[in-house]
Amino acid sequence: MFSKETYTSRRAALRKLLQGEKGIAVFIGNAEAPAQYRDNCYKFRQDSTWLYYFGIDEPRFASVIDLEDGTETIFADDVSIDDIIWMGPQPSVAQQAAEAGVAHSAAYSGLGSAVGKALAQGRPVHTIPPSRYYNTLKLKELGIDGQPSEALIRAIIAMRLVKTPEEIAELDAAGVLGQKMHTVARKGIRPGRVEQEIVGEMEGVTLSEGWGVSFPTILTQHGEVFHNHGHAGVIEPGKLMVVDAGAETNSHYASDFTRTYPTGGKYSPRQRDIYQIVYDCHELAFSLIRPGVRYSDVHLAVARLMLDRLGQLGLVKGDLDEMVAAGVAGLFMPHGLGHNMGLDVHDMEDLGEDLVGYDTDQLRSKQLGLGSLRMARRLVAGNVITDEPGIYFIPDLVELWKKEGRPFVNYAALAEGYYDFGGIRLEDDVLVTGDGARRLGGTRLPASPDEIEAAMAADRA
Amino acid sequence: MFSKETYTSRRAALRKLLQGEKGIAVFIGNAEAPAQYRDNCYKFRQDSTWLYYFGIDEPRFASVIDLEDGTETIFADDVSIDDIIWMGPQPSVAQQAAEAGVAHSAAYSGLGSAVGKALAQGRPVHTIPPSRYYNTLKLKELGIDGQPSEALIRAIIAMRLVKTPEEIAELDAAGVLGQKMHTVARKGIRPGRVEQEIVGEMEGVTLSEGWGVSFPTILTQHGEVFHNHGHAGVIEPGKLMVVDAGAETNSHYASDFTRTYPTGGKYSPRQRDIYQIVYDCHELAFSLIRPGVRYSDVHLAVARLMLDRLGQLGLVKGDLDEMVAAGVAGLFMPHGLGHNMGLDVHDMEDLGEDLVGYDTDQLRSKQLGLGSLRMARRLVAGNVITDEPGIYFIPDLVELWKKEGRPFVNYAALAEGYYDFGGIRLEDDVLVTGDGARRLGGTRLPASPDEIEAAMAADRA
Repeated sequence: MFSKETYTSRRAALRKLLQGEKGIAVFIGNAEAPAQYRDNCYKFRQDSTWLYYFGIDEPRFASVIDLEDGTETIFADDVSIDDIIWMGPQPSVAQQAAEAGVAHSAAYSGLGSAVGKALAQGRPVHTIPPSRYYNTLKLKELGIDGQPSEALIRAIIAMRLVKTPEEIAELDAAGVLGQKMHTVARKGIRPGRVEQEIVGEMEGVTLSEGWGVSFPTILTQHGEVFHNHGHAGVIEPGKLMVVDAGAETNSHYASDFTRTYPTGGKYSPRQRDIYQIVYDCHELAFSLIRPGVRYSDVHLAVARLMLDRLGQLGLVKGDLDEMVAAGVAGLFMPHGLGHNMGLDVHDMEDLGEDLVGYDTDQLRSKQLGLGSLRMARRLVAGNVITDEPGIYFIPDLVELWKKEGRPFVNYAALAEGYYDFGGIRLEDDVLVTGDGARRLGGTRLPASPDEIEAAMAADRA
Repeated sequence: MFSKETYTSRRAALRKLLQGEKGIAVFIGNAEAPAQYRDNCYKFRQDSTWLYYFGIDEPRFASVIDLEDGTETIFADDVSIDDIIWMGPQPSVAQQAAEAGVAHSAAYSGLGSAVGKALAQGRPVHTIPPSRYYNTLKLKELGIDGQPSEALIRAIIAMRLVKTPEEIAELDAAGVLGQKMHTVARKGIRPGRVEQEIVGEMEGVTLSEGWGVSFPTILTQHGEVFHNHGHAGVIEPGKLMVVDAGAETNSHYASDFTRTYPTGGKYSPRQRDIYQIVYDCHELAFSLIRPGVRYSDVHLAVARLMLDRLGQLGLVKGDLDEMVAAGVAGLFMPHGLGHNMGLDVHDMEDLGEDLVGYDTDQLRSKQLGLGSLRMARRLVAGNVITDEPGIYFIPDLVELWKKEGRPFVNYAALAEGYYDFGGIRLEDDVLVTGDGARRLGGTRLPASPDEIEAAMAADRA
């Protein structure tokens, strides 16, 4: 938890952004999430917006902020003697509220009364979209499961998009831990091992020093499958291993890195050719990041460089402007260049991707790839984003485009030489500074093909 | 997944147990559980009853069994081209249903139609209690969130209480992995280290070789706090470290072991005295386990031995029969002697503790300790249970009993010498065999005070 002043001033800033709005704002912290049954739960993860404004990292807390008179109340239950036996002595709710700078507290059931009173008086009740099924149920139970409040959502996004120095310190720490995970992974990659063994080693590191993983670890020899969470594969020589993983600190800030390793320690010439394109796209993006630049434009600059270079390999052919406009890069990179990161690895995704990632004058593309871009906004200092270009050869997708007769693509060359290639992605976490950008997380992980081969040779020495 | 025949015959046995019941039985597999937002989820864990009867370890599956004509249908959605990009080619729902021996399949939305049709025809719809908030919402949405079916619940419990040889093999494997976690813990305990570091190392092992932990790891120098999931403590010399942890295999069977280590490698005389009582209680329980014995009687035999021995230490005083009857043991062991274990570490707890753990002629006690007993039934071969006595000194609880004027307890001796003691627990997993019992999980972890001190000395050598 940060200091009381941090939370007090954040809530004051939120109320200021919402000046003129009537009614109350309701914040529902998370409950425990059952894995098998109600008393056997996953590791507790608090709601990120709750953490941001109240900091209390315990289940079943809620709060109401009166937007008109500024009164703040936290609702949660004090522990009973039974709870003391099972969970030990706990600070009172009033004490916890005081640590967050909140003057009033009441039993959890008081939330229902507070909301009911506001509804009876015809006052607006501002809510955010539920991030979990528990919250969905709770909103239904409170009778406020209608439209979330766009005013409240926009105010929260405006604040959380710009990280403060104390948040940046946490994000750097998350970066250091995430890079430690990746180093464990790189050292663990050896033909004959099972992928799951390495995943366990990586995740053990995050649990020893942090909350755990910031998202389910991707470690796969099928990099062309983006969200491949199976880890039963045996590592084969000559393959590419995509490792996309990050850590969450005990304070719940995230990191998110991707590296793509040659399973045998050396890239084949064909692998190196594609890797070099991805690497150059990554570096180009990093060089363009600065306040005032639209990240959608950085995505498009990457698409242009990628198509130009794929053209040099004979995999696409045509006018570069036309290919960029037609979204041909989406065949090779069907995802966006990056996303916001903070308390969530895709920061605030529960609040709505478009509201978080697009300025009010930006429309989301419908093209494959660019349409998946989660962060398109004009960058401002304090934004934390990922820079993660990739090139993938997805046979089903290539065949679909071929069937649809889409131009510019050398389908024969792809079918002949790339259907067993897999994919390559390279990702770092980037802070937008006053005049440019810096990578988060201390010493950068090896990133270029030469750096990676040298590191793997040293690991094996 | 086991063979198709396993699931087919389990469902046939279930239908046979429900012979004469009208209507349909509905089974709802789990959805992904969001950690922060809908697309960032905890590691997927399937519903255990679903796993038992259908085996398919994927989210958003459901099924209906017609109890009258025996028709079985699985409801789930096939993947789209978008899903193929993000998750790779997937087997069709029809293929997955066939692997579970189910002839019919339909889209997930078909579940609503099937239930709606049965309701419209006035046919009974049998459900089990929801284990997660998603299932609660789903039952509401289907209009079947009323009373779960006791007939269905009892039939499932009757089957799952008695483990088959293929399940026992999985439980042994879970035991081996759980013991490996514990060995890592024992080797990691050193004054000056932070508890969380060891927890991470233990959990890394379970993730490398299995699904993960079967419940949140307890590793604490405050053993008197049962569900202490904070791990920020620095290990101090002279303390007792309770480690209660287990693994879940990739096939989702659980283990659950507890050991209590002296943080410096040697028990103090007072620690050893209490440990020896717990150890002897544990061994007594194990010696009594055999078919036909009520596990509640084993709990009471342990309570008697514990009180007798605490009497020898001068901590309680009075007639042994009277003390047992008055539940004095509950002050020192406010939990039950053990629980069923299988696909869940507290097996089937979502189906109702009393239905699972009590024969129809048994009433649950209201006494502290015995009242928390989760498994009281007459044992039968194939039951898998835990044997986990413990002794704790919980200052708040002792003070409460003192204030209430409860007899038999030497409050002065407890206040003088034991308020900083903590607690000791010792737990193994036990299979009820045809004529007795055997411990699960291969080579037993060191358990007696001498064995533990010898192992810790060897670790440090």
